[in-house]
Amino acid sequence: MLNLGLASFAAAIAQSGGAVEQIEWAPPAKGDRAAGAALARLVNHPEIEAANRKAFQSYLAAQPVLTGIGLARDAIPRMGGRLLLHSGPPIAWERMCGPMQGAIVGAILFEGWAKDVEKARVLAEGGSIPFEPCHHHGAVGPMAGVISPSMPVWIVREAASGNLSFSNLNEGLGKVLRFGANGAAVVDRLKWMATVLRETLALTLAETGGIELKPLMAQALHMGDEVHNRNAAATSLLLKRLAPAMLKSKATREAATEVMSFIAGNDHFFLNVSMAACKAMLDAARGVEGSSMVTAMARNGVDFGVQLSGTNDRWFTSPAPIVDGLYFPGYSIADAAPDLGDSAITETAGLGGFAMAAAPAIVSFVGGTPADAIANTAAMGHITLGQNSAFTLPAMNFSGAPAGIDARRVVDNGILPIINTGIAHRDAGVGQIGAGITRAPLGCFVQAVTALAETVPEA
Amino acid sequence: MLNLGLASFAAAIAQSGGAVEQIEWAPPAKGDRAAGAALARLVNHPEIEAANRKAFQSYLAAQPVLTGIGLARDAIPRMGGRLLLHSGPPIAWERMCGPMQGAIVGAILFEGWAKDVEKARVLAEGGSIPFEPCHHHGAVGPMAGVISPSMPVWIVREAASGNLSFSNLNEGLGKVLRFGANGAAVVDRLKWMATVLRETLALTLAETGGIELKPLMAQALHMGDEVHNRNAAATSLLLKRLAPAMLKSKATREAATEVMSFIAGNDHFFLNVSMAACKAMLDAARGVEGSSMVTAMARNGVDFGVQLSGTNDRWFTSPAPIVDGLYFPGYSIADAAPDLGDSAITETAGLGGFAMAAAPAIVSFVGGTPADAIANTAAMGHITLGQNSAFTLPAMNFSGAPAGIDARRVVDNGILPIINTGIAHRDAGVGQIGAGITRAPLGCFVQAVTALAETVPEA
Repeated sequence: MLNLGLASFAAAIAQSGGAVEQIEWAPPAKGDRAAGAALARLVNHPEIEAANRKAFQSYLAAQPVLTGIGLARDAIPRMGGRLLLHSGPPIAWERMCGPMQGAIVGAILFEGWAKDVEKARVLAEGGSIPFEPCHHHGAVGPMAGVISPSMPVWIVREAASGNLSFSNLNEGLGKVLRFGANGAAVVDRLKWMATVLRETLALTLAETGGIELKPLMAQALHMGDEVHNRNAAATSLLLKRLAPAMLKSKATREAATEVMSFIAGNDHFFLNVSMAACKAMLDAARGVEGSSMVTAMARNGVDFGVQLSGTNDRWFTSPAPIVDGLYFPGYSIADAAPDLGDSAITETAGLGGFAMAAAPAIVSFVGGTPADAIANTAAMGHITLGQNSAFTLPAMNFSGAPAGIDARRVVDNGILPIINTGIAHRDAGVGQIGAGITRAPLGCFVQAVTALAETVPEA
Repeated sequence: MLNLGLASFAAAIAQSGGAVEQIEWAPPAKGDRAAGAALARLVNHPEIEAANRKAFQSYLAAQPVLTGIGLARDAIPRMGGRLLLHSGPPIAWERMCGPMQGAIVGAILFEGWAKDVEKARVLAEGGSIPFEPCHHHGAVGPMAGVISPSMPVWIVREAASGNLSFSNLNEGLGKVLRFGANGAAVVDRLKWMATVLRETLALTLAETGGIELKPLMAQALHMGDEVHNRNAAATSLLLKRLAPAMLKSKATREAATEVMSFIAGNDHFFLNVSMAACKAMLDAARGVEGSSMVTAMARNGVDFGVQLSGTNDRWFTSPAPIVDGLYFPGYSIADAAPDLGDSAITETAGLGGFAMAAAPAIVSFVGGTPADAIANTAAMGHITLGQNSAFTLPAMNFSGAPAGIDARRVVDNGILPIINTGIAHRDAGVGQIGAGITRAPLGCFVQAVTALAETVPEA
């Protein structure tokens, strides 16, 4: 009875959420006739349905395991020489947002390719350093997402396929590279991370062996995290695994003390591990011909890009939205860079905003209620292929997180994927100025569905 | 709108819970005329109301700080010589339940007062060793709750009054003293705890300084704990505070490794800290003349005892109930010892079963739903003096945990305090055989209210 009560309550909220959506109702793809025709071709198409089942099943079956840490140049494929990775879809230097340019400059200084900020900017503008998306190398990075060859990266192995995914390591809050800061303190911290932190964690992970990430993330969902904007529990759980192993390892006591203090002092430390795990789960679903399942959502601060399983590595982009969130004192939406970072890989994997019901503290931080969190998660059930029973949500009677975004449904009913995110200042180096809940733009899904339809014979 | 939705939902559940209670409705105190007269004297009595406001305010204002660890003989008042503390109200050796006798024997072996189990039993039976409740010494212990002079205890200082509270340290699961096990492995672990664990934690706490416990517990409530039967988050948060400090301290690396592994391997490690913190908060409310606020609920496996602020150290007891919970494979209710331990101090402080809405995993472990958890917490709102805004519950729109049990209301409406508990085997040393949700018995509240009425002039 009480159980039914909660379920019907959640359904009522979902319906209420649906009603809110309907106020903004528009015909599919806002009346775009070509998209409407594409959608008509794809809906209830037996091959698409079969392809989506296959892609979704591969995502569900994925088992990301944290296996190690290494320098990007050694760990990431095609990462030798001078190459810088960034978040989101491809973008040229000229079009990059302030924080990304700032981070590129910082990475050049960190690598020692230029002596000062001015020379680094000249070098970046000169075109001799290629800039490529993290996603093109199996990697993901939050905010500017810049990864340079000498930076350490987490290595996550997907046990079923053996595929590897990567992410850089979280620097903490304040003046950090991912928000475009590039001063001496930022570069010094990156150097410490590339040496002491990397070496200590490598020794520690050699002691723990691979750490299965889905059970750890599932436990964190039961502890108030959605493992995107809130990683307090997951960071604590990871530290609990690492701490005894670190002491048993060959790490020096001085290094262990520094590393443990660094991790204990940064509740976002797990974010990048979470992102690499999500990337691993979604890469498992890539390249299934005809599948309309979204395998990546990523923003470079200018463009918001999506990829579908059935169209593989092709990007479909729309202008990245400005986040109408809660701004720290002294800042407003006028100061914000548009939506930025690869961290929407968590929402793509059914976490973050999709699992917001697990983390009511997120909505209350930006002015909402726990009921809003449940409503947001319930609404995502309308645009997803199923639930991930590995990620259960206590507040929704332990139902699985809605996962496997179906681009057809996004276009068809206009419910846009929700994303929990931090907000960067538009200028390099100022840092985080707020946090909020935003939506993926419709346009890139319309383009993706239209392109997918061209690959599919009529049913 | 959604906010109101949730509030009305919670209210509906509470009403539903109330309705369930009404099926078992009986006149106050089951028609006991003396108790009915006592109640009539106490209800809406201006002095009682004022006394309860004072006691509740003192509980709310209490600030328990984990300040250290020491040997019981050094830390606990009147603990010199041969003395053993136990959980619950006073009880003689002959009446003790199996697990408590087993734990007493184990403590005697640990202290070296006897060479073997047989001699230890003879010594215990002989009457030369006094047995006293932990509560008589400002202490609390889970299950058998046995504290002997050479055991280490947590020292919690209540910042407002300077009063000290104590608890023993959690041994982990399996064969442990608190469930009455007393074999060599149990005694050896106790010796390690009294030396390596105690010394290492003492050095660590010297490094951290006092750790404020209410914020830590509040955070754990936002992470799925109710800090009685679930302490996974709180243990992780404590370890996060201790780990870097331990490495900065003078503790040897070997000791730090052992201690960190011990803590990381026991999700209940924080329980005893939680209990000492709750004891500190409730001791702050003691001794307010006329107050019907419950300051202790404690079980010795035979008797369930309560104390009121207005009757100070006097115990009122009823037979301890058998817990109709979820039993581990191979065990049933026939194997269970009656309700046991001082850990109901957490419920007395508005945590545990009273804060069950924070910990849906607890009810699902014993076969209920998250809605049941919310209903249980909401029902406790009918027998409490207010809410503790320091302990907010995300699933109930961040309302404060219901706290300050008013014995008058328990007797008046027959809603019995709910307690989350582990279940011990009736025989010494078998260990935990299940877990469940139980209720305090009505009888002790009836006696307490009757006794309190005798101390109060008619209004």
